[in-house]
Amino acid sequence: MRIDILSLFPAMFEGPFGDSITRRAVENGILDIKITNPRDFAEGKHQQMDDSPFGGGSGMVIKPEPMFKVVRYVKETTNYANRRVLLMSPEGSVFNQAKARELAQYDQLIFICGHYEGFDARISENLADEIISIGDFVLTGGELPAMIITDAVSRMLPGVLGSEESAPTDSFYNGLLEHPQYTRPREFEGMAVPDVLLSGDHAKIAKWRREKSLEITLRNRPDLLETAELTDEDIKYLNKLREQNIQK
Amino acid sequence: MRIDILSLFPAMFEGPFGDSITRRAVENGILDIKITNPRDFAEGKHQQMDDSPFGGGSGMVIKPEPMFKVVRYVKETTNYANRRVLLMSPEGSVFNQAKARELAQYDQLIFICGHYEGFDARISENLADEIISIGDFVLTGGELPAMIITDAVSRMLPGVLGSEESAPTDSFYNGLLEHPQYTRPREFEGMAVPDVLLSGDHAKIAKWRREKSLEITLRNRPDLLETAELTDEDIKYLNKLREQNIQK
Repeated sequence: MRIDILSLFPAMFEGPFGDSITRRAVENGILDIKITNPRDFAEGKHQQMDDSPFGGGSGMVIKPEPMFKVVRYVKETTNYANRRVLLMSPEGSVFNQAKARELAQYDQLIFICGHYEGFDARISENLADEIISIGDFVLTGGELPAMIITDAVSRMLPGVLGSEESAPTDSFYNGLLEHPQYTRPREFEGMAVPDVLLSGDHAKIAKWRREKSLEITLRNRPDLLETAELTDEDIKYLNKLREQNIQK
Repeated sequence: MRIDILSLFPAMFEGPFGDSITRRAVENGILDIKITNPRDFAEGKHQQMDDSPFGGGSGMVIKPEPMFKVVRYVKETTNYANRRVLLMSPEGSVFNQAKARELAQYDQLIFICGHYEGFDARISENLADEIISIGDFVLTGGELPAMIITDAVSRMLPGVLGSEESAPTDSFYNGLLEHPQYTRPREFEGMAVPDVLLSGDHAKIAKWRREKSLEITLRNRPDLLETAELTDEDIKYLNKLREQNIQK
């Protein structure tokens, strides 16, 4: 997959992409990341990227011309059949694991990062294929969201995760939060590992893990249960938990 | 505010914190950020940070001892009355602007970043004051979420945003998505700026912007309307929009 990031602050990407799953994907030739600065496409001696908003108000707004130019440049100098231009902005649809899976199907993703206080609306309406938000909070720019999406999407590409990582058992892959994990020591400052995990009884361990996963999801994120894949046994166990809560 | 980040990959933070609102907050003395590597607190020749999970399964789990040690070290070597230990994990409550405002009230935030596939549960249950997720997706580690939260929280600290930025008009500050913004040129490749914004009529512009903000929120994120602060006029306008949609 090819990823193009259009950012006024290319230096922001050095650390995160230099030391993560993304770096491994790049080294293995699975991912090709290019960062381009839209300022190089801005005109005039000062290469001005923003200007004050029509209608008044504080804040500066990113101008349409350099953004249209840089996206066209990227599209003309690369050759991928299946590509998507993504604009990072809080007004977009909220990013989640299903969206990561969907984006992982493209050959090229082009991220437009800007300052949240203002893209000229002609950019969001006519240049982007899709507007994506990573959550209900305000950030300085679209750079961190682009890194988040790149990381989440990279993990879905075949060959990126080693066998030791096993994406399918992570949270959200089956629609539930993950069960608790324990490692050595068996007891740490009076806190012990649950006996069942030391029992060697694989069926019992699998059952315990599934039940814990259901318990944590019910307690912290009951909304996820509406779309999770549940067996009859899961539903029975959830009903039991709900009854116990009512009795308390 | 003091921010301590506990990460096995300290180099990831160089770019993002070197070139953003966060850097300005540090330069102005409003924010003091320290990154500490828990591996320095791991024992043995290999300073092992993780180990296989009890009960079997793939993936490695972060051991409790070095994490407890590094958090204690940070607490003992700093002196803040009002502090909070945050663990980044998908099982936590979902981060949003209200949580950013709440966290901005603390004197010190301590972020435990780990690999999402496994913290020993004794860390999440007994070391962290709070578990925070930034959304329903799986990432390589807690580093990017810690950067996101640091950025969002920094923006809420008094003196960080210049007068030209004006946080209160951003999306989510009043519970609605932001209205569209336009800047020069008035017409770009056949796409024109709406006339009202060129009218100079401030009342009309304010009304247009509020209505657009309501429209975009109704279309993209109707869930936000349930908690947004709405006037009688807003509600009337929303009802009109809903009627028009039904008639279509």
